[in-house]
Amino acid sequence: MAHITLKNEQLPGIIGLMHFRPETAEPLNQLAEVLLRGPSSLSSGERELIAASVSWWNDCHFCHHCHGAAAAAHLQQPPDFMDRIKEGLPNEPLSEKMRALLEIARMVQQGGLKVTEAHVAKAREHGATDLEIHDTVLIAAAFCMFNRYVDGLGTWRPEPKEAYVPMGEMLAFKGYVNSIPE
Amino acid sequence: MAHITLKNEQLPGIIGLMHFRPETAEPLNQLAEVLLRGPSSLSSGERELIAASVSWWNDCHFCHHCHGAAAAAHLQQPPDFMDRIKEGLPNEPLSEKMRALLEIARMVQQGGLKVTEAHVAKAREHGATDLEIHDTVLIAAAFCMFNRYVDGLGTWRPEPKEAYVPMGEMLAFKGYVNSIPE
Repeated sequence: MAHITLKNEQLPGIIGLMHFRPETAEPLNQLAEVLLRGPSSLSSGERELIAASVSWWNDCHFCHHCHGAAAAAHLQQPPDFMDRIKEGLPNEPLSEKMRALLEIARMVQQGGLKVTEAHVAKAREHGATDLEIHDTVLIAAAFCMFNRYVDGLGTWRPEPKEAYVPMGEMLAFKGYVNSIPE
Repeated sequence: MAHITLKNEQLPGIIGLMHFRPETAEPLNQLAEVLLRGPSSLSSGERELIAASVSWWNDCHFCHHCHGAAAAAHLQQPPDFMDRIKEGLPNEPLSEKMRALLEIARMVQQGGLKVTEAHVAKAREHGATDLEIHDTVLIAAAFCMFNRYVDGLGTWRPEPKEAYVPMGEMLAFKGYVNSIPE
């Protein structure tokens, strides 16, 4: 049970909250859509990896698995990809640029002032553009919001990772806008 | 100098970032507008107090002063009100409900899972509604995003609090949408 009485207690995580408060759901979904599925030189799979990693660092089970599943859907990976995200994907063929961007995201998760010129210089050395650095910081910051929203209101969530596979496919291929049930 | 090259280096804090990336500025401003100026049983002054307090706890000089100045504008207080927000407003005539909501915001700032049933029960005892509790959590969560966005990209900001007075008045009385310079 969430800390507040939702209109539909069956809806897990942020979905129940967005159904409760459609006025804030609209800009929240638009933000996710632009950041994770809008035009970008980072693939949606790479951007969902940032979202899922930050959610894991923030200990947000629901968001970690939704966005881990979305990353897996984009990157055509099996469900255990969600566990590999928790471990930092040490054996995955991630580019050096992506690893440097994930390091920036890690700093943002700890606090904005933790990001130093050296973190940014390293990403730039590996080919990151200003827009990619900007979007990495904003995705990481946005998930520090989404994670706190979902857990701060004590929402219900499915436990097993397999339960998130259909949601991940929906987020990956249908998107964030208009995804809130009536 | 920010960590990335902005289109207009004169624009401080989030203003320069919104000018750099209008696609994300739009939902960010819409979110702030609904949360801080939309219809609510919490006054805009009370909601700006939550925003300014969270920004202070996150050590974000720019956001603390912008939203502290907006709170001061709504509540007809002098600029030193921004300093009193840092101290937790011990001598201000805040309602017990507002103090309980600020305590929830403080927990959200530390992490979503820090909010307990007891924090929520206390707010409810002092008359907080589900919508007020929801909005408090989302305002606090949103400022954990805005603060990280502004500082994670190393944006420039004015130091003295007096510099934020006109910005606070603009945010309070003109609002967040359409506030980005061309």
